[in-house]
Amino acid sequence: MTGNPSASLRPRKRLLTGLQPSGQLHIGNYFGALKPFLDTYKEYESFLMVVDYHALTTLRDPQALRANLIDAVRSYLAVGIDPKEATLFQQSKVSQHTELAWVFECLVTVPFLMQAHAYKDKVAKGLEPNAGLFNYPMLMAADILLYDTDIVPVGQDQRQHIEYAREAAAKFNNAFGQTFTEPAEKISDEIAVIPGTDGKKMSKSYGNTIPLFGSRDEIAKAVMSIVTDSDSAVPQNVYAIHRLIRSEAELAPLYKEHEGKYKALKEALIEDLDAYLLPMRERYNAITEADVKAVLEDGSARAREIAETKMKDVRAKLGVAL
Amino acid sequence: MTGNPSASLRPRKRLLTGLQPSGQLHIGNYFGALKPFLDTYKEYESFLMVVDYHALTTLRDPQALRANLIDAVRSYLAVGIDPKEATLFQQSKVSQHTELAWVFECLVTVPFLMQAHAYKDKVAKGLEPNAGLFNYPMLMAADILLYDTDIVPVGQDQRQHIEYAREAAAKFNNAFGQTFTEPAEKISDEIAVIPGTDGKKMSKSYGNTIPLFGSRDEIAKAVMSIVTDSDSAVPQNVYAIHRLIRSEAELAPLYKEHEGKYKALKEALIEDLDAYLLPMRERYNAITEADVKAVLEDGSARAREIAETKMKDVRAKLGVAL
Repeated sequence: MTGNPSASLRPRKRLLTGLQPSGQLHIGNYFGALKPFLDTYKEYESFLMVVDYHALTTLRDPQALRANLIDAVRSYLAVGIDPKEATLFQQSKVSQHTELAWVFECLVTVPFLMQAHAYKDKVAKGLEPNAGLFNYPMLMAADILLYDTDIVPVGQDQRQHIEYAREAAAKFNNAFGQTFTEPAEKISDEIAVIPGTDGKKMSKSYGNTIPLFGSRDEIAKAVMSIVTDSDSAVPQNVYAIHRLIRSEAELAPLYKEHEGKYKALKEALIEDLDAYLLPMRERYNAITEADVKAVLEDGSARAREIAETKMKDVRAKLGVAL
Repeated sequence: MTGNPSASLRPRKRLLTGLQPSGQLHIGNYFGALKPFLDTYKEYESFLMVVDYHALTTLRDPQALRANLIDAVRSYLAVGIDPKEATLFQQSKVSQHTELAWVFECLVTVPFLMQAHAYKDKVAKGLEPNAGLFNYPMLMAADILLYDTDIVPVGQDQRQHIEYAREAAAKFNNAFGQTFTEPAEKISDEIAVIPGTDGKKMSKSYGNTIPLFGSRDEIAKAVMSIVTDSDSAVPQNVYAIHRLIRSEAELAPLYKEHEGKYKALKEALIEDLDAYLLPMRERYNAITEADVKAVLEDGSARAREIAETKMKDVRAKLGVAL
């Protein structure tokens, strides 16, 4: 991380993470992404951004996008993110993101962007990628660099995006003088794969999810569908999910008492899951669209102020400020 | 032109033209571009945009960009454009341009943009084009479509840009409902090639220009350098430039009187050019940087208001408005 002078004056490092507006969440999302963020976000000056303009590269369904956008924010608020402790904002409400993306596009070559994994994957599959997907790394660079972000938590497969952001920062800094902080990635390799009802990674596309904000009936239905071997004392898929919310020590007597009794163990899991999820579900159901809108307007105004300060500097350095 | 309903209610059609901030102007620019615009712009609701964010695709020199930007606006004001009769604005001061460009990028494929002549030319020359140049047609589409532009005056070689804008409009309208007016080009084929001091097209790159706002001495020096054949009665290169400011009937007696006397004819041209250019030069020298700034701020505020109204509609249709 090379220094923006102001960065060192901040009491906490800045962390930025993107929120995909991708629809109804399941407990795999919670234990894999939301909870890790919830557990650590106050250590940083955290920016949580709903990436609705990124979503346009793959989604062309206004109703779904709007619903997912609202749901994503509602979910983060329901699990306990305090919008006073983090800047929760909407990418499309901060026009500086697409503006800075344009500037970066003028600094990088076409072949350089063609090396991006996400782009190459599409081409390898014989798809005609849209230009938004092609330019995606430069919008993401803008997302990160506008805020002098120190840390970006990403999965191993997204490491390249941070490299692109660093490259964009370096290119601009070299051409126009020190302006952007080069961010570091924080690879979340400690995050366990959350098992679904069939034992595979929990994922909407596998149809093996347990809803995060579902009713008790929906939880029960999902748990009852957990695939079990008929010949083992402990139903591994039930136990794996149970372990997400209870310690080994807590579970040992229960699984001993009901050894081989899958139905009783599933019922115990339903009970525990329902108790665990209830407070979040209640908050989720209490949060209105107006609440979400107010949080995003407030957060986006804060983000815009920081982003505009940065862009004023950028425009002056480019020679377009009068 | 398919109709935006509001378009038909306007008393005048909307015309938009881009102003390249490309440095000191010469009389070739004046007779080729500025004067034709000056003669017709009041027939339309005219938008005159300094395309500084386009310029970034080829220019990475802040001092030069800033100076050229100011000079371009000063030049248009000096030749007589009334900023109350046209919206004279700066592209980078209206962030909706890059924002809408991003939206269009998500609607078109990479191969589609690769067909652009300007891009193909660079690749054919073995250059590594930057991504800004690659995306240029979508920024230009945004430039045009944000204002429900009816008419874009372009040279024959720029016809494709208007086709790209129409394609972007059609793609958006098809996906999200009628939103954008498809613009028509106005090919300026009637514009004669303005001859330089060597008889070739007047162009900075040929070093054959006569400065538009130069002093009498600078004009004299340029005219004296006009290349003449030693064996013709009328020095064709002198006559061709003289014809820009005087009719055939006016020139006939002069060229008859001084037949074969190149020096006398050049002196007459200096006299006429100086008289013709003097009022513009005086205005040019009187216009301050502060004047330019005030005009651009006012015009950009007007442009932003129209652009934001359009983007509100776009964002709602995309599903990102709450």
